[in-house]
Amino acid sequence: MLKIPPHQVAGHKAGNGKLGPLVDESGRFYKPLQGDERGSNELKFYTSFSSDSRIPEHISKFFPTFFGTQLIEASDGSGLKPHLVLEDLSVGRDNPSIVDIKMGSRTWGPEASEEYIQKCLKKDRETSSLPLGFRLSGIQIYGNKESGYWKPERTSVQNLSAEEVKLILKRFVSSNTSTDMDMQPDCAFAATVYGGSTGILSQLLEMKAWFEDQTMYHFYSCSILIMFEKGLALEGQNPGGQIKLIDFAHVIEGRGVIDHNFLGGLCSLIKFISEILTAPSEHKSLVSSINGVN
Amino acid sequence: MLKIPPHQVAGHKAGNGKLGPLVDESGRFYKPLQGDERGSNELKFYTSFSSDSRIPEHISKFFPTFFGTQLIEASDGSGLKPHLVLEDLSVGRDNPSIVDIKMGSRTWGPEASEEYIQKCLKKDRETSSLPLGFRLSGIQIYGNKESGYWKPERTSVQNLSAEEVKLILKRFVSSNTSTDMDMQPDCAFAATVYGGSTGILSQLLEMKAWFEDQTMYHFYSCSILIMFEKGLALEGQNPGGQIKLIDFAHVIEGRGVIDHNFLGGLCSLIKFISEILTAPSEHKSLVSSINGVN
Repeated sequence: MLKIPPHQVAGHKAGNGKLGPLVDESGRFYKPLQGDERGSNELKFYTSFSSDSRIPEHISKFFPTFFGTQLIEASDGSGLKPHLVLEDLSVGRDNPSIVDIKMGSRTWGPEASEEYIQKCLKKDRETSSLPLGFRLSGIQIYGNKESGYWKPERTSVQNLSAEEVKLILKRFVSSNTSTDMDMQPDCAFAATVYGGSTGILSQLLEMKAWFEDQTMYHFYSCSILIMFEKGLALEGQNPGGQIKLIDFAHVIEGRGVIDHNFLGGLCSLIKFISEILTAPSEHKSLVSSINGVN
Repeated sequence: MLKIPPHQVAGHKAGNGKLGPLVDESGRFYKPLQGDERGSNELKFYTSFSSDSRIPEHISKFFPTFFGTQLIEASDGSGLKPHLVLEDLSVGRDNPSIVDIKMGSRTWGPEASEEYIQKCLKKDRETSSLPLGFRLSGIQIYGNKESGYWKPERTSVQNLSAEEVKLILKRFVSSNTSTDMDMQPDCAFAATVYGGSTGILSQLLEMKAWFEDQTMYHFYSCSILIMFEKGLALEGQNPGGQIKLIDFAHVIEGRGVIDHNFLGGLCSLIKFISEILTAPSEHKSLVSSINGVN
């Protein structure tokens, strides 16, 4: 039985006659192959990457497992359509807090069409991408059984200032997730989610070491997902903090050069997380335009 | 007695009635203050940076010492003009080999004028900046007393491929500096210039650690100079390999974010140098458009 993924925070969404990804009960995620070269490019990447013996296991774990392609009934009712069959990253999570971070100050590669470059450049300049080296693309933060999720409009989190992004990344690991932006997040779970030998920061540093060395792929317009389970943190258990890379429609060959665009953004993100771990209570009051919707 | 710097490899040059920098015999370098906001911005940077107590000494050594400004006779005969008074980086060097590397895949900051952005973007796309994260801006390689310097046209080194840049960076530390691009450089001095605890790679890594942390400045359109003395290397002495950052007309405030654009390019450069140290004899034959002129 296929259904709409309950925890998608960015990207095309299924439902109301629209084409989007589906999940099944066995833990698989079905992503419609985009009809243009984006679809063929993403399939090419998954096919190549999943069989590439140069990728060490401590790196491949950051990517969704790839199970090939399959013709399934598309979510928009248009009949059988080819889908990428991937690991459903939310399996085993009850109420995941998730942030989708589109990496790089530049979301276009040198070989893209002029029209695509101009479109991306405009958006990179209008959002946080250019100043920060990444932009928030979507987020959901679990509060508790009563309040449910804080899930702001996707467009409202894309063009935040450095201070606002830091506030969101603090709220992400706080027990008080009020939508009042003047309320100081308590960062109650910063140490257990971001910190520690298996926490988010350690995983980002592991990924960084690989990006300093690998010259095989340039990951334009990819996202890092950061996920954890607040329910477990509240019970004093390991909250299962995890990063994953997703969205490979614009990956190109590295041709002997590191992906300095992704790496620069990754170092910027690492600096944000490090600062939150070092000084969780440092806070500047902000007038914000972030609209909370549940 | 002021004279034209003998070892300038990039930037505006004095001579033939043109405005450019001058040096004196006491080891000072006089850079004409550009009349527009570039001049005032570079002066602002030097003034702020040189008195900034947050800059550790192991980092400030990568910057030319700043001695203020002075009115001197301009090199173009236009009379007294204000100049930045800086340390002459070539003092004490007889026959320096020098490469000027303009850092970053993007040479423009978010607040530049639309006209300037479009001009820079075009050049970044036409040169190595976009694919490599940096571009060679000028180079001189000392051969020996008879052959003098190999000093290719500046425009011919700006748009090289990754393989060509690697070849040039190998030739830079080779004893055979023939202009024949099919000749394999021997990398005779790679270990002593690039390697070792005080070599170029160590210095670049020291600079990288600072860039991973500092959020004070974004260094758009700056260059890293790499210099050493081949004569000393030939005599088995320490060749005095040194890196310096120059050209701060487009530095802007960091506003709490690391300079991910510079850092990405720096990591890319580090990867090139590391690969040369690891596999100095790996070589691909190239058809090249690099024109050698002495």
